[in-house]
Amino acid sequence: MITGKNHIGFQRSASGDNVFSTLNPKLNIENPIKFHEASAEEIDQAVELAWKAFQSYQNYSGERKGEFLNAIADEIEALGTDLIETYSAESGLPEGRAMGERGRTMFQLRSFADLVKRGDWVDAHIDTAQPERTPLPKSDIRKMMIPLGPVVVFGASNFPLAYSTAGGDTAAALAAGCPVIVKSHPMHAGTGELVASAIIKAAEKTGMPEGVFSNLNSSGIEVGVQLVQHPKVKAVGFTGSIRGGRALYDLAAKREEPIPVFAEMGSVNPVVFLPGVLEESGSDLAQTYAGSVTLGVGQFCTNPGLLLGIKDHNLNSFIASLADEIVKIEPGCMLHPNIIGAYEANKSKAIGQEGLQVVAEYDMEVGVNVARQAVTTVDGATFLKNPTLHQEVFGPFTMVVQCNDKEQLEAIILALEGQLTGTLLARKDEAASYPGVIEALKNRVGRIIYNGVPTGVEVCPSMVHGGPYPASTDSRFTAVGINAIKRWVRPFSYQDWPNELLPEALKNENPLGIVRLVNNELTSDSL
Amino acid sequence: MITGKNHIGFQRSASGDNVFSTLNPKLNIENPIKFHEASAEEIDQAVELAWKAFQSYQNYSGERKGEFLNAIADEIEALGTDLIETYSAESGLPEGRAMGERGRTMFQLRSFADLVKRGDWVDAHIDTAQPERTPLPKSDIRKMMIPLGPVVVFGASNFPLAYSTAGGDTAAALAAGCPVIVKSHPMHAGTGELVASAIIKAAEKTGMPEGVFSNLNSSGIEVGVQLVQHPKVKAVGFTGSIRGGRALYDLAAKREEPIPVFAEMGSVNPVVFLPGVLEESGSDLAQTYAGSVTLGVGQFCTNPGLLLGIKDHNLNSFIASLADEIVKIEPGCMLHPNIIGAYEANKSKAIGQEGLQVVAEYDMEVGVNVARQAVTTVDGATFLKNPTLHQEVFGPFTMVVQCNDKEQLEAIILALEGQLTGTLLARKDEAASYPGVIEALKNRVGRIIYNGVPTGVEVCPSMVHGGPYPASTDSRFTAVGINAIKRWVRPFSYQDWPNELLPEALKNENPLGIVRLVNNELTSDSL
Repeated sequence: MITGKNHIGFQRSASGDNVFSTLNPKLNIENPIKFHEASAEEIDQAVELAWKAFQSYQNYSGERKGEFLNAIADEIEALGTDLIETYSAESGLPEGRAMGERGRTMFQLRSFADLVKRGDWVDAHIDTAQPERTPLPKSDIRKMMIPLGPVVVFGASNFPLAYSTAGGDTAAALAAGCPVIVKSHPMHAGTGELVASAIIKAAEKTGMPEGVFSNLNSSGIEVGVQLVQHPKVKAVGFTGSIRGGRALYDLAAKREEPIPVFAEMGSVNPVVFLPGVLEESGSDLAQTYAGSVTLGVGQFCTNPGLLLGIKDHNLNSFIASLADEIVKIEPGCMLHPNIIGAYEANKSKAIGQEGLQVVAEYDMEVGVNVARQAVTTVDGATFLKNPTLHQEVFGPFTMVVQCNDKEQLEAIILALEGQLTGTLLARKDEAASYPGVIEALKNRVGRIIYNGVPTGVEVCPSMVHGGPYPASTDSRFTAVGINAIKRWVRPFSYQDWPNELLPEALKNENPLGIVRLVNNELTSDSL
Repeated sequence: MITGKNHIGFQRSASGDNVFSTLNPKLNIENPIKFHEASAEEIDQAVELAWKAFQSYQNYSGERKGEFLNAIADEIEALGTDLIETYSAESGLPEGRAMGERGRTMFQLRSFADLVKRGDWVDAHIDTAQPERTPLPKSDIRKMMIPLGPVVVFGASNFPLAYSTAGGDTAAALAAGCPVIVKSHPMHAGTGELVASAIIKAAEKTGMPEGVFSNLNSSGIEVGVQLVQHPKVKAVGFTGSIRGGRALYDLAAKREEPIPVFAEMGSVNPVVFLPGVLEESGSDLAQTYAGSVTLGVGQFCTNPGLLLGIKDHNLNSFIASLADEIVKIEPGCMLHPNIIGAYEANKSKAIGQEGLQVVAEYDMEVGVNVARQAVTTVDGATFLKNPTLHQEVFGPFTMVVQCNDKEQLEAIILALEGQLTGTLLARKDEAASYPGVIEALKNRVGRIIYNGVPTGVEVCPSMVHGGPYPASTDSRFTAVGINAIKRWVRPFSYQDWPNELLPEALKNENPLGIVRLVNNELTSDSL
């Protein structure tokens, strides 16, 4: 049941005066529940509880943390149709998408549960003593990863489940041993509260300390600002706009004790179509990309917003086919009036730039909050000299840049800001002739895709979801996949520490049976 | 031969008008060479060359980078007594220390050479495709670490070799595949130039691209500021004061594209003496700690500046013995008049605080720039309420805090800022009775030591040299040991990439024979 209250540790609380509602974008009416924004006292209480919980939770075994994470997945599933209906009522996204995203969310939680139960993610290193070494004896030194402390997670508007309350950031932080305080996204506060209640139930059932998780409602920026500035918050995870992510990064950097902020932000996800592949299968690719551009009404951070090709008649045919295909697709409802408002404004701004030509825009009547997809095109020289054209138009919009030649194509890629992904479409054996293009793309992105689409982010150990700024604030980490846990941990050394006082991961007997680097050799043997 | 010029790529250059000299602190006279501070044009030239070098150097094999690193070690050795004499003339440190530090520098270079030649540091992950998976097929995704781009290194005043021109930061960055621009430390510009010439010789001999390394002279902050703000600089390494490190961190955070700064800064390195160990061996410990406090004239970041014990007659005896022992030690010359000036000022400031008592201070006549070591003491309550007493006095100074009980001891540790190290001295089986003290210490430091001294930082995979702010700006990394390479790299994914176009580390055949995580199993098998 949705109450509109905050979860402060194991209590529900609504002491603040500010209330707000979510909106059903399909019907364009407010949903009935009034949500109470967290007050300054509630925020402080949540952080103090998290700090207290950290003192014990940081030392919980992988087994126990794994039980907790699996219990969260179970409790989310147990929310049943309530969750699915609330999700759709707050996002306008269809039931199928809700079910898929719930599945992904549970899979992420269970993946992190497996990771911490297995235990070798702590990256244990052991260098044994050499008391006889000259001129100085060598100490016994052992290293493992330990958690940073309470983590604040800002949910994403476009993933009410998979990158929000119990999404990837929360799952990774809880797995690491960090309590989590979620600043709930105002557009899906009800979905957030339901998921938060599932987390709290799981925490109580598996005996977690109070404060291991809190969920705070917010309608503006104040709650987030207070959280990021709180001295007992030790790291921040964010998914959203460049403006929002950068503001949090700046706040965190100005603290007396600066803290890491991992913000996954905007991206236009450049896609390079080489001439041969357009000749061979331009019309199939047009169909595939019409689907990728409009998937989820273009509301994915991996949406292909920039398509690059070299001028010839095959590129012309591809643009014509893409235009034909994209208007065949039924337009969809966006998440919120603010989001479609920004889409229309950014689209108009782009279209208003000199030299940009609209080749297709859905022009039939549409319902409220429904976005008209569009394909535009521009020549390489115009694109190069106008940085406004490099900016993301969040929604079902793409721009085809027609380059004069390979060199201009390369120059354009080099001129782009950092991106989450880059994609290369090439006929068999064609890619080898474009080493400069591939190198340029590699230096601007976190993931490079061959003959596919950038949409669809697999949850697996090899995934990198992040990239040079502004794709993310720290390209040295990924937001998706088990390595996302590394954002919330630090290495810690024990020197000459008695075996009986060492954590299990570093004891001579290797009671966890994990793989460790012992005197430079990987082994799961005991010492 | 020392020329006083900058190394801009393979050229020597001295186009700027500002000149400065280094100082021989033992003789308190200027050394003869005039150094030319790098001009704005020279700085830009060095970064542009580094950027260009990065385009090829980032893809050099581990074998080639390893040859380069080993060649640097060889060329440093070949500098012979010139280097040792310059080092001593610029630092006042004795020949033995110079030789030891040179050995450590060469060992670090060779360790990173071994690491990149072995090749598995790239943390290769492979998840193979599952084309039959439903509802969606799974792509083949492969991940490895790739370098960030040109790195700027700020050398440390207190380690003219091991944490300067060819020190740990430079070795780690070159190993990662990042060109390096060193902002040479003004106090040992001659030592820096000699080492830079060795690096350039090694680069030329092993066929490295011009710009892989540059060395810029500087007398103030301007050169460093311009470097950190340059858009083509992608990361910064710094060792030095909190003020300096924080200023660079702030500059980097304000860039249009923020970049990571790893600054290793101050630390008082708390040492806890439990009652039993003082009873058993207080007088031996006093002798050991008199040595540790004065080692290198106290000019180590791991210097034990804060000793904590619980009030009893054994603690009194320990303080008396420490006082006796420390004045027996011959005082040493500090690195520079500025450093001893700061030492005397900070010592006076501490001594001027209410409740602080001086129990020993060397009072015989000393030479110029020679520091008088001191031991002070204060009671726990006074220490707790006066944060000025928590600050580092860089030099041969320590403070013994006399706590009322275990609880006050714990409260004091919790009140400290982040530290590089924490040390526990305990009689056999005594530590187990102090879990709160150990947990508190763990949460404030990067490395915890049992029955030893914090001075001495082993170069090995398990070492963590870093810690919560302000010990370092990002506790998620270490500045010492092979894992220091992780500061300069980012993960990168290839999705469905053709085998022949993949880097060696990710190819099916595993031509490098490295250990990889393939479908969640560590293996060095080919696919």
